[in-house]
Amino acid sequence: MRHIKVIGIGTGNPDHLTIEAVRALNAADVLFLPDKGEEKAELAAVRHQVIATYGTRADQRHIGFSVPKRQVEGLAYGDSVDAWHAALADNHARLIASHLGEAQTGAFLVWGDPMLYDSTLRILDRVKATGLDFSLDVIAGITSLQLLTARHQIPLNGIGQPVTITTGRRLSQDFPETRETAVVMLDGEQAFLALDDPDAEIYWGAYLGMPQEIVISGRLGSVRQEIATRRAEARAAHGWIMDIYLLRKPLPST
Amino acid sequence: MRHIKVIGIGTGNPDHLTIEAVRALNAADVLFLPDKGEEKAELAAVRHQVIATYGTRADQRHIGFSVPKRQVEGLAYGDSVDAWHAALADNHARLIASHLGEAQTGAFLVWGDPMLYDSTLRILDRVKATGLDFSLDVIAGITSLQLLTARHQIPLNGIGQPVTITTGRRLSQDFPETRETAVVMLDGEQAFLALDDPDAEIYWGAYLGMPQEIVISGRLGSVRQEIATRRAEARAAHGWIMDIYLLRKPLPST
Repeated sequence: MRHIKVIGIGTGNPDHLTIEAVRALNAADVLFLPDKGEEKAELAAVRHQVIATYGTRADQRHIGFSVPKRQVEGLAYGDSVDAWHAALADNHARLIASHLGEAQTGAFLVWGDPMLYDSTLRILDRVKATGLDFSLDVIAGITSLQLLTARHQIPLNGIGQPVTITTGRRLSQDFPETRETAVVMLDGEQAFLALDDPDAEIYWGAYLGMPQEIVISGRLGSVRQEIATRRAEARAAHGWIMDIYLLRKPLPST
Repeated sequence: MRHIKVIGIGTGNPDHLTIEAVRALNAADVLFLPDKGEEKAELAAVRHQVIATYGTRADQRHIGFSVPKRQVEGLAYGDSVDAWHAALADNHARLIASHLGEAQTGAFLVWGDPMLYDSTLRILDRVKATGLDFSLDVIAGITSLQLLTARHQIPLNGIGQPVTITTGRRLSQDFPETRETAVVMLDGEQAFLALDDPDAEIYWGAYLGMPQEIVISGRLGSVRQEIATRRAEARAAHGWIMDIYLLRKPLPST
């Protein structure tokens, strides 16, 4: 049977790969790599740096594929993602059937960890549903959330307290009075600017793990404008940005 | 100045270390290792296996320390943790001052990732507050949460949806109708047995990354008794258990 490995490669630094991930990378006869379309050049460069640094197989084939753009106009969010995943699943099914022999191992290298705001596992489920059979292995990788807390040298959770991981779109719903900590990913709209919570602490990071990494922390009311400015400058300079932040309510003074 | 590295070592399998963690392990002149008290023998064995597998320095000193038991009787949870951290900080300050030279590097090897339900960073903050100065480096590690989703081959979040990470004690508060996904750690009381949500999906794992690993998934109403039984048997057989689970509301059928 065909075998597929979905390998988390961390975020921006090849040394964030686990030893298990390095082994999995070199167990693959074929690597499927996004090489056109929506993938940013710097992200593609990190993937290639991972392979150049830790790949050991001269006989490994690298098959590029294009990532289509998600159609957003005229579609609800769920429908838009559904159509996009369907298109990606068609592509992946064709790629696997054409390039992976019946007894071979293929791998997808996923930014961060395949579990967190990544669609590779969902897309491969759809590929299976088309009738193309394969066994699957998932290899965990360091997420940007972990780099964020490591850089700021803070625990994610308050003692015995819950944490919510959410998106910019959902932040105003998911950071209510009763929650101590929220982590925000995928925030294109800078939802922290609109929060009416100036005493919350914010721990922000962009390009975590990469040479251009930026981290800023402080009272939301004091640093949010600085974050917005640095974010805009960096985005203009690099042409793209990937950022994440943690918000923590101040402890009650009682 | 003294330098301390807090290194996440993953959960149970030395190959879950990142390359960065292996480097950090070997940058340490001194490793501080819990060797008595509350640490379970199997967990101590994993630490030693990590060092035996990936340690390269014959001149590295290993300093054992005892982890005191947390006093729970007659104390509120917060006060109990506070007193425990204070005792640990005293121990750590003494350890560092006695065993780490002024220009040396020491390291603590933390189960999983130092950010997630671990107190090492808080304790080192307290050590600093005593006036003992050192620089600090935090190295991310694979958490049991990541192994759980990798083993079950599932994404953590629903598409664009939030996730709550919480404890058994807090589950009934933190898995309300509006939340799609909750991950429960530190659940000594098996809070999933009391949930009035038989159609939720549960993905459970114990001893993740270790040879005795167990995973079970299904509709909560169908598998929760099986999980409780396997959990009790495994706990009796090994003398301890460490488990984690993910709960997901069924998608609305509309």
